[in-house]
Order: sequence, then C-alpha cells, then structure tokens
Amino acid sequence: MQLLVQKYGGTSVATTDRIVHVARRIADAKREGFQVLVVVSAMGHHTDELLRLARQVASAPPPRELDMLLTAGERISMSLLSMALQVQGHDAVSFTGSQSGIITDTRHADAHILEVRPQRLEQALAAGRIAIVAGFQGMSLEKEITTLGRGGSDTTAVALAAALGAVRCEIFTDVEGVYSADPRLVPRAAKLDALGHDEMMELAAQGARVLHPRCVEIARRFGVTVHVRSSFTQAKGTVIGAMESIEKVVIRGIACDEEVATLTVAGVPSGQCAALLEALGSQGIATRVVVQTGHGDSGELVCLLQRDDAVRAAAVLQTRLRQLPSARLVQDHEVASLAVVGEGIQSHPGTTAGILSALAAENVPVALVSSSALAMICVVPQRDARRAARALHTRLGLDAP
Amino acid sequence: MQLLVQKYGGTSVATTDRIVHVARRIADAKREGFQVLVVVSAMGHHTDELLRLARQVASAPPPRELDMLLTAGERISMSLLSMALQVQGHDAVSFTGSQSGIITDTRHADAHILEVRPQRLEQALAAGRIAIVAGFQGMSLEKEITTLGRGGSDTTAVALAAALGAVRCEIFTDVEGVYSADPRLVPRAAKLDALGHDEMMELAAQGARVLHPRCVEIARRFGVTVHVRSSFTQAKGTVIGAMESIEKVVIRGIACDEEVATLTVAGVPSGQCAALLEALGSQGIATRVVVQTGHGDSGELVCLLQRDDAVRAAAVLQTRLRQLPSARLVQDHEVASLAVVGEGIQSHPGTTAGILSALAAENVPVALVSSSALAMICVVPQRDARRAARALHTRLGLDAP
Repeated sequence: MQLLVQKYGGTSVATTDRIVHVARRIADAKREGFQVLVVVSAMGHHTDELLRLARQVASAPPPRELDMLLTAGERISMSLLSMALQVQGHDAVSFTGSQSGIITDTRHADAHILEVRPQRLEQALAAGRIAIVAGFQGMSLEKEITTLGRGGSDTTAVALAAALGAVRCEIFTDVEGVYSADPRLVPRAAKLDALGHDEMMELAAQGARVLHPRCVEIARRFGVTVHVRSSFTQAKGTVIGAMESIEKVVIRGIACDEEVATLTVAGVPSGQCAALLEALGSQGIATRVVVQTGHGDSGELVCLLQRDDAVRAAAVLQTRLRQLPSARLVQDHEVASLAVVGEGIQSHPGTTAGILSALAAENVPVALVSSSALAMICVVPQRDARRAARALHTRLGLDAP
Repeated sequence: MQLLVQKYGGTSVATTDRIVHVARRIADAKREGFQVLVVVSAMGHHTDELLRLARQVASAPPPRELDMLLTAGERISMSLLSMALQVQGHDAVSFTGSQSGIITDTRHADAHILEVRPQRLEQALAAGRIAIVAGFQGMSLEKEITTLGRGGSDTTAVALAAALGAVRCEIFTDVEGVYSADPRLVPRAAKLDALGHDEMMELAAQGARVLHPRCVEIARRFGVTVHVRSSFTQAKGTVIGAMESIEKVVIRGIACDEEVATLTVAGVPSGQCAALLEALGSQGIATRVVVQTGHGDSGELVCLLQRDDAVRAAAVLQTRLRQLPSARLVQDHEVASLAVVGEGIQSHPGTTAGILSALAAENVPVALVSSSALAMICVVPQRDARRAARALHTRLGLDAP
C-alpha cells in the first residue's frame, strides 16, 4: 500500500470546526486506499500567543524553555485532530516530534534534523492507523525538546515523506498553489501547475512564502514529490518534482520580498571578507545573497539578509570592523528583493538585460544585481518593489490570461 | 544540602504576573540554602479550556488523545516559570513528566505512578539548578503520555518528594491552609496549624478539597511532611505529618461534600453484592462509602460516590440487575456527605451519639451513617448540608475563637 503524507498549516486547523473539516479530507485520502500520515501545525496564531506570554515573562526568553513552551501548540492541534478522526470512525493516533523519531541537533529555535527513526510511525501505519504527527518539533540527541524554526512543519512533513518512502507529500495551505508571483503584490499572477525542485528552491530562497527553502531542499535531495494545495477548496494545486516532461519555459515566476535589508562594508581588504561572513555564520545569521567586488584594500562586501536579522548582523560586523579602521558599514533597511526565477535566466541571452531594461523603463533604481543558474536577484527601494514586480511580471509574459 | 519540593497550583500561576511572583518565592527558598524542585499545574483554567476544545471535536474524547492534549497545559506553565526564574538571574530548567521519570500504568486520564526514575532531576539539582516539573503527567511503560487524574499535580509533588528524600513538600494554593471545615460553608471554621497524615487522609477522602486523597496517601506511606500554604500571603499554613507531639484532640474537622450521590440496591442477595461492586470497579468507578445490610435475599447495598460518576454507575448496576429480578435500584442525587474527622471519633464514647443528636436537634434527617477509626460519615439531604455543617462545627467546639 502506498503512503501519502499530508501537512496542514495553522490556518487549516485554526478552529475546531476546521479541524473537523480537515479530518474529513484525511479520511477521503484513506478511503482512496493510501496509508496516511498527517503532519500538523499549531492552531491559527497559537504559536504567536505563546510567544507573547513568553515575552511578558522574559524580554529575551531562554531558547531551551521557549522550545518547551512552543511545542505545546502542535500537541494541542494534533490530539484534537486525532480525536476528530476517531469520532468519524477512523483509527488515528497522534505522536509528538520525539515519539516520531525526529532527531535533531541541539540548536534550539532553529534545530536541523539529523536523522529520522520512524519505528513507531511505521508500526501505526502498518496496523492501518492514520498517524498524526506534531510538526515543527523534534528531540536532540541529548533528549532535549527542540523546534525546527521557520517552515518547520513543512520540513517535518517532507523529511518524514523521504524517510518513509511516501509516494508524495501534500502541503495543504491557505492558497491554491505556487504562483508566478505573490497575488497580493501582483494581481495578474498565474497559478503554476508544475515546476521543478530547483526552480522552487530559488523561488523559496528568495522569499516566496508558500514553501520554506529547507523543506524544498530536503524534497530535492531525496526526490520527494511535493503537492501544494488549498485545504479550503478541491483545486488542483501545484506539483513540485522531477516530472517526466517539464515544459521548457524561459521564466517561471517572480519572488518579491519586502522584508529584507542590505549591509554594505566598503573599504574592506578582500582577504577579510571571509572572516566577516564567518562571524555572521557563527551567530546563526544567514545571508541570502553575498556580493564581493573590488580588490586590494578597497573591496566592497554586500550582504542581503532578512530584515529581522539586520540589526544583530550589523552589531556583529561592527565588532569585527574595530580591527579594520579603513572599513565602513552602511545599512539599508528600506529595500526589497525581486528574484526572477526560471531555467531561461542564464541560457537565454538577453534575459538579464531585458529585466534590467524593464526596471529602468519604470525608473526603478537597482542597488544590487546578482544572478545564478536559475535566478536573477535585484535589490530595489522598498517603495518601488510592488510596482517593479508588476511591470516585470507583464514584461516577462507571466500574466494570467 | 536539603531538598525542598514546592508545588504551585493553577490559581498561583494563572497569569504571567503571578508566574513572576511565584518565581520570586522560589528564589527565596533557593536563597535560604535549599535545593529546590518545583511542581507546577497548568495556568488558571487552561485545562478546562483544552477540555472544552476537545468536546467541540468529540463528545467523548478518546482518553489517549485527551491526555496528549491536556499535558500541553503544564508544558506552557513550566516553561514560562523557568523563563521567569532565568530572567531573575537563577539557573532553572523545566522537565515534562516523562523527562522527570514519572512512570505510570496505562490508565489514561487516571494513571497511577508505578515508579519514579528521577536521574535527570537529580543531575539538575546536584548542579545547583532549580528543577521545574510539569505536574499531573507521566509516561507509561509503553511510552504513552498519561495524566494522573484529579489532584494529579499534588500527587506528582509528593511522589517526587518521597523519591528524592525531600525535607518537606510545600503545597502552595489559594487558601491559607487546612481548616476545620470549608470556610465558604462554615464561616467560623478555624485554620489548623498541624494534623496527622491519617486525619488528613480522612478529611481528603470525604471531600475536603484542599488536598487529594491520593497525594495524602503517598505522603503517609513514605512519611513525607506536607506543608499547605497560600501562594499569595506569608501565612504559616498547615503542616501535615508525623509530628513529635500532635496534641490529642477529640475532633479535628468536618468535610462537607455537596457533590455526591447515593445508589441503593434493595432486595439483593447478599452473596451478589461483591459482584456488583466489582462491576463498578472494573469500570473505574470509585465508591467512597459502601454499606451492606440485611441478609438472605433481602439484602441492601448502599454506595456513596461522586455525583459525576452516579449516572454511569447506575447504568453499570442496571445491566447487572437484569439477572436479579427481585432487586431494585434507587438513585439519590440530592444528597451531601458530612464527615467528622478526628482521633476521638471511636475512642471517645458518646461522640457518635453527640453528632447524631446534634443533627436531630437541627431536624436534619440522616439517610446513612458509616463510621471508621477516624471518621464518621453522615449522608443528609443536600439542602440541609451547610446548616448541618455549621451546627455540628459549633456543637463539637471547632469554631474559631
């Protein structure tokens, strides 16, 4: 019997009514003849409510205790969902992250999965039971409770799909699939029926919020087919995977992220750039794009990163720069990133130029350009970002018919 | 260094402000030179809120999932309390029931502790850390999450105090100690400074709500001194234990329980009574008092039990009685129990008579009387219970000066 993994996000289980509705969808999958494993997030904004309580007690809550606190959220949603299935006559059983064998490193609030030991899940599935698993959480080798950070429940779902050899992993969310751009920013965005793991990686890495990059990375590495669908409709959604025939299109979509910042270090000896990036990495600060230019003592290092991390990152860099009197740090928090993603970016000559000329035609200044095999990222002023995204979307032929 | 176990109930940690306040009290104990282990309940009425959610999904929530759900409550309060201590500069660490080594049987919602394996707690305490433990919960030998039922957090605290050889177990609550009667029912009730384990057992068993009988039973068996105190004041509270000199008093106090019912089976062959009680026991229904009278085929069996259990108990008995056509079941849900507790009950001649004549003088009809070494229990109409309790309290010389 084939195994189907389904993941339901917080919006999908925000109320007990919705939990009952989700239980019906799960039962449908079971009836179709699958073994079913369900990963579930905390109800609605419950994680935020728990965070608020923590901040009433401690302005900087200790990470180990914060993980202990936050993991209560999925415990509540998963047990309610299991109850709802049982009431509908189905044999269901819930498991915490540690009961599911999600073994992580010890980095609280942003733990990474080291290994999955899914014996209890396998037993439950083999017995014909629907297994409900708490997303977002695991247990470290030191038997401490950990959480997986942003996108954690998606990561749990894909990791379990990989470990258990699921036929596919369905991610149920509050949108109908992956779009050529965020429909809230670009009204003409079109839903994509299918795209490859690599393309989804680029879109996710550049801020398309529908899937977290870590989850896509695991899916790509283990070849897990991911199906993004709405939990509120029966629409077809978007299939991400190694498909037999991915139509060759030039550009797949645009990711616009308005929650970024740039840090620029000017006058830095190029030999020192690595040390600066290591200092950021050792503090757990991820950089999304790094560009290094210049040479000798007049090098320049530009980092694009999440705005939430920018103040802390700047402090880390300032400390380092005390030993480099010639260097100067400039922060810009009023920027946004536009990432154009698709196989044609590099192979089709003129695409890069076309993107830049489209932005120029809209009088959008471009502070930084960086391109890779599948994506071209432009940093623009935040106030221009939506207008630029819409113009590019039209210019690149992505508008819905 | 001596170990002090403290337990804080839901009212004491109902808000983040109160959690911060409780953290200060814990820090005081640490400063006095104790090793400190704290057992904590869920915040305020959070357990009830979780139950409400469960009932929205399932009218009779499956017990295994209900335990999974409810244990989220203490996870939240304990991690917040640990954070509050850390913010105040103390080294604290929280542990779930299973991390604390609370090993139980598999009876969900009413599990009993089989064993305590407190290695992680011992390590934390030896390292000078304040250990915060989730009350009310444990893990079965089959690695399932369980809850201990009513009074569960008190039971956790006393069991850990016994396992770890604590000098005493302080139970912080919203009242100032154990009273000679419930002050809400008997305004002249006097706070008791000290009483013995046996006396507290009787008071608790007959419905004095300040401590649960299971917790007192463990305290008595392992000789744990229990100190009941208010978390809101510095008042002295009540010490329960094997004290060097417990003053010999005739009557210690009165427990009045208005949440009981009686089931009477008339016309039952006395040989069948055991089978009826076994049927109740096998369904997990506890009887508080059982009286059997008569002989031959015209025996009568009266059970006093919690009103919550009465309908279910009656159904169990009715099923059994199909095979006993002569028997007849009478339920009375409009009763209350009055238990007079003290060492003098049996040893002082005339006490029993004095109690009954006091009730007669108040025109309170007594439906059932049962007495043991330390207690005399009278079942009276619910509408008369408070009046009877006050009259007895005065007549027996218990009124506060």
